[in-house]
Amino acid sequence: MSIEVISVEGIPFIRPGDDFVDILCACATVMSGDILCVASSVWAKAKGYIRILSDVNPSERAERIGLACGEDPRFIQVVLDESYDVIIEQPFVLSKMIHGHVGVRAGVDNSNVEGDIVITLPPDPMKDAEEIREMLFAKTGADVRVILTDTCGRAFRRGQTGVAIGWAGMPAIHDYRGTTDLFGRVLEITEEAVVDEFAAFANFMMGESNKGVPAVIFRGAPDWEGHDELYFDEKTDITIRAYRELDL
Amino acid sequence: MSIEVISVEGIPFIRPGDDFVDILCACATVMSGDILCVASSVWAKAKGYIRILSDVNPSERAERIGLACGEDPRFIQVVLDESYDVIIEQPFVLSKMIHGHVGVRAGVDNSNVEGDIVITLPPDPMKDAEEIREMLFAKTGADVRVILTDTCGRAFRRGQTGVAIGWAGMPAIHDYRGTTDLFGRVLEITEEAVVDEFAAFANFMMGESNKGVPAVIFRGAPDWEGHDELYFDEKTDITIRAYRELDL
Repeated sequence: MSIEVISVEGIPFIRPGDDFVDILCACATVMSGDILCVASSVWAKAKGYIRILSDVNPSERAERIGLACGEDPRFIQVVLDESYDVIIEQPFVLSKMIHGHVGVRAGVDNSNVEGDIVITLPPDPMKDAEEIREMLFAKTGADVRVILTDTCGRAFRRGQTGVAIGWAGMPAIHDYRGTTDLFGRVLEITEEAVVDEFAAFANFMMGESNKGVPAVIFRGAPDWEGHDELYFDEKTDITIRAYRELDL
Repeated sequence: MSIEVISVEGIPFIRPGDDFVDILCACATVMSGDILCVASSVWAKAKGYIRILSDVNPSERAERIGLACGEDPRFIQVVLDESYDVIIEQPFVLSKMIHGHVGVRAGVDNSNVEGDIVITLPPDPMKDAEEIREMLFAKTGADVRVILTDTCGRAFRRGQTGVAIGWAGMPAIHDYRGTTDLFGRVLEITEEAVVDEFAAFANFMMGESNKGVPAVIFRGAPDWEGHDELYFDEKTDITIRAYRELDL
């Protein structure tokens, strides 16, 4: 198996209201079977999922957390507004979003934006991934699988990697339950988070810093069978429990 | 930028004592600049990093943990032997290895092995990655970067993904400190765990189950600058602290 991974060059600086898919199609040719990864920050900006810090009135809680974390209380207020469930407030805000993703500062991003704008995660990234997929089909006739990516820290390991926060046209998890190993024994490790593996490598292709590329195409990837339960539920998530019980 | 990702097909079932690099070179052509990902389980088996369960005498602790986790106490004994620091004992053993990686069951693997053999992680995966790199250079003259991969669960997200446990010829982390965003502001998110992003996608290419491919080549990837501090130190690792304080 050979897969070609292509970073889409030449996409101009995106502003709220831009038709991202239209711009993408002017810079790259997508084909049926492709997996397209799109940086959620750039997609969110085009869709207008932004806040202007000078318009934000921080609550008492945001002031307190801002002081504890060394962050602008108005920025923290946006983080709290985006959080469905705050897990810890310090030394950084870690929270669960309504769509299930758990991230530091609720994924609110203040890099690569002008003035005092911050970008929030798309409120319904599954719907947005489906929207991109449908727009691509309408514009090009190509049946493209879509992943919206974010960058995120990890437990135990330094540095960020790309993760999937929305996807369409494929299951998130390749489910091996019921399949056997080379010796016919049923596998114990049964779930592979494939959309995160694509998002991770897409993040390398995108780069950070001032040379960012917001879209990456994977060409030649096979299908897989599985499901979309990418997030632990609260009862089985031992890490969330450990964080909640932590005395900070 | 375009990168070609090639899974190396045709590698036969590996047995202890096999010359993995020799076999690899018979199945694929590596070129200078390639990044080669190798599944640590298959490499470990070739190197003889295995244990035979019928030879293992479980300690009282292994018996107790085995009972709590529903695992073979002899398997748990191997896990304990491989652990430098056990973080939690149940509902699964989570431990830090001497080389810094934190993983469930210390990465001990009982899939795709015959009889009652289990495969352990390489005891010094950095040295092994360098050994593969040097052997490839000696055999082919190609200057190849090497990543040894394992599969590993994550906090908050279901399913496993590939991670790097050893690497040679490149820094683990792309360090953006001092670089600026599109508006000239110094970036806050400054570290990208690039070796893990390669390992993640390599894991998709490798597959699990009975069609496993133990080596993947990335062709056309640029260099990056950074450092090798892929693991948090104990003092800054809030997740380890949360786990240690967890009342189980």
